[in-house]
Amino acid sequence: MNEQVLLARAYLSRVAEPPAPALAELVAQVGPVEAAARVAEGRVDEPVARETSVRREVHRPAADLDAAAAAGARLVVPEQPEWPAEGFAAFDGAGSEQLAPPLALWVRGPGRLDELCEHAVAVVGARAATSYGAHVAAELGSGLADRGCTVVSGAAIGIDGAAHRGALGVEGATVAVLACGVDRAYPASHELLLERIAGSGLVVSEYPPGGVPGRHRFLVRNRLIAGLAAGTVVVEAGLRSGAQRTASDALSLGRPVMAVPGPVTSAMSVGCHRLVRDGALLVTRSDEVLEAVAPIGEHLAGRPDPVRGRLTDGLDAPAALVHDALPARGARDTRWLALESGVPIGAVRVALVALERRGLVEHCEGRWRRRVVEAG
Amino acid sequence: MNEQVLLARAYLSRVAEPPAPALAELVAQVGPVEAAARVAEGRVDEPVARETSVRREVHRPAADLDAAAAAGARLVVPEQPEWPAEGFAAFDGAGSEQLAPPLALWVRGPGRLDELCEHAVAVVGARAATSYGAHVAAELGSGLADRGCTVVSGAAIGIDGAAHRGALGVEGATVAVLACGVDRAYPASHELLLERIAGSGLVVSEYPPGGVPGRHRFLVRNRLIAGLAAGTVVVEAGLRSGAQRTASDALSLGRPVMAVPGPVTSAMSVGCHRLVRDGALLVTRSDEVLEAVAPIGEHLAGRPDPVRGRLTDGLDAPAALVHDALPARGARDTRWLALESGVPIGAVRVALVALERRGLVEHCEGRWRRRVVEAG
Repeated sequence: MNEQVLLARAYLSRVAEPPAPALAELVAQVGPVEAAARVAEGRVDEPVARETSVRREVHRPAADLDAAAAAGARLVVPEQPEWPAEGFAAFDGAGSEQLAPPLALWVRGPGRLDELCEHAVAVVGARAATSYGAHVAAELGSGLADRGCTVVSGAAIGIDGAAHRGALGVEGATVAVLACGVDRAYPASHELLLERIAGSGLVVSEYPPGGVPGRHRFLVRNRLIAGLAAGTVVVEAGLRSGAQRTASDALSLGRPVMAVPGPVTSAMSVGCHRLVRDGALLVTRSDEVLEAVAPIGEHLAGRPDPVRGRLTDGLDAPAALVHDALPARGARDTRWLALESGVPIGAVRVALVALERRGLVEHCEGRWRRRVVEAG
Repeated sequence: MNEQVLLARAYLSRVAEPPAPALAELVAQVGPVEAAARVAEGRVDEPVARETSVRREVHRPAADLDAAAAAGARLVVPEQPEWPAEGFAAFDGAGSEQLAPPLALWVRGPGRLDELCEHAVAVVGARAATSYGAHVAAELGSGLADRGCTVVSGAAIGIDGAAHRGALGVEGATVAVLACGVDRAYPASHELLLERIAGSGLVVSEYPPGGVPGRHRFLVRNRLIAGLAAGTVVVEAGLRSGAQRTASDALSLGRPVMAVPGPVTSAMSVGCHRLVRDGALLVTRSDEVLEAVAPIGEHLAGRPDPVRGRLTDGLDAPAALVHDALPARGARDTRWLALESGVPIGAVRVALVALERRGLVEHCEGRWRRRVVEAG
């Protein structure tokens, strides 16, 4: 990696307040080194000047790189193979100035950014989470991480923290995207959590070392959470919340938006229900999340339902009830099936014969079980 | 009304176990009087014989009509103007034998069936409802009834009962469709509730007086609940439930299916979440239900929401929550609003001032209520 490129992007990262669409455009046109030179000298057109004039004289890329190194962090730039190019490619086509790509990312931790983002899902939500929401976020975090998926979130208190902790609890991969420098612990109460994330995954920010968080930065940061993940799940959200901003960014990037329902009496679920009414996918567990973000077919194996929708068409009511009663895995005897389905035991036997004829169930040492049917 | 027609349909109503698609077809072809004569004499083809042979010699229409009258009930048949023809028209096109239209309906109560079904919504759900589900069902029942909508349900314990009670609580219209004779109180613990429904709305059944409930009849009955209503809301449902059957019938009839979300940790919400994932509309309050079932524009006039969408743009979160918490009708005090909205009482007061300034609420004897704003 060209040291000049690293220094140029470190400089630009401190000069421009994200998102900086005009500067990103200039960098794309003339490269980071030339762009940095022009910015430093003020030889830029009006849009770029608006994004860079205030801090263009703050020229301390080497000091920032040293500060990062001292904090165990480093700078990742688009010129490196570690850059998550695929995730950020969608920024180009999003057609929104808000969705300008980051100029560089400061990262802290042993993870490799591109690898972590290869299978990543964002789990975000309200700071004022209920214990229900925190529980569900932790379950999703561990469920996704357990299946090899990186959990991306914002390290905020509430849902974000619970999602990270869920992933860490199963020794899974998790990435925290901050609205301040990666050398800062914000929120302060999450200092230990951030250390744990930086100890196994990555803490990421587009703000240089020492950068302080601010309301604007939280919203701007959310586009990176959406951009690094293949899809975004909102666990709890009030009517107007940062999580909904992340969801809206994900939508603009063409990524699936998912929302977890909750009691309609809970103000913390209002935003989630609104999202579903507006077209987001309702999800209740990590399987459903993975199914939504996985390439088609990848997570379908083992799911009984899509198959049932076809092969059970036209079954009479007792047969359908008996088939419904059979669990996805495991065998049951006729007595159990009668109790579970509410179908009289004689009719259960008739139904089982019909189901066996269709290849939907099989007999096995006095018990019955669903046959695994290949989807397709 | 031709007495012969009434007697013929009363006879057929006892002879055939619903649904009886072949018999319904015969009645449509030759009329009820001729159809009854042929059935009584056994001069019918195989499909009709299958539906009528067991009980065709049970010939007691006059006695059944007398028994109904003694119980304060009467028989409503398609030849009468009271028949809800519009609601049942969809049965013809549903293309399902399960969805055969009823041959006649026994009804008890002062309501007129066709008028009650002109604006009707089914609110159904699990017997093993949680207190959350029962609360939401009652709120929906009262909210819908308050807006002039008839609440149709199955009088079961749990969600059904709560929905009926919600409607009765605001002196609204409600219709209970039973899986037994309208002269029976089933479930027994709902004897009083059924009396209240029969005292103002209607208790309805396709089973003749004395008919006993059975598991099969509950499922078959559900198609009538779906058919009498413009749309069906499922409040709580397990993975396999009668409420889902009602929803599936509504779908086959081309009527909107709605589901109320709940905690993903609740087994009683699993069926609702499944319905939403399969395409049902997520609803959280009666406004949203009315919007889904109303002819376009009809419910927009008195609806606070489209207006809120404009006048409340830019409200901060506490003000929006407080405004949302205020019911469409009725005044509430600040303490109530704080509890309902989850906003601290001091912030509620600040929010109310902001809302009053915008003309969204008004003060009235120590309480606050929504101002009626003309849509336009």
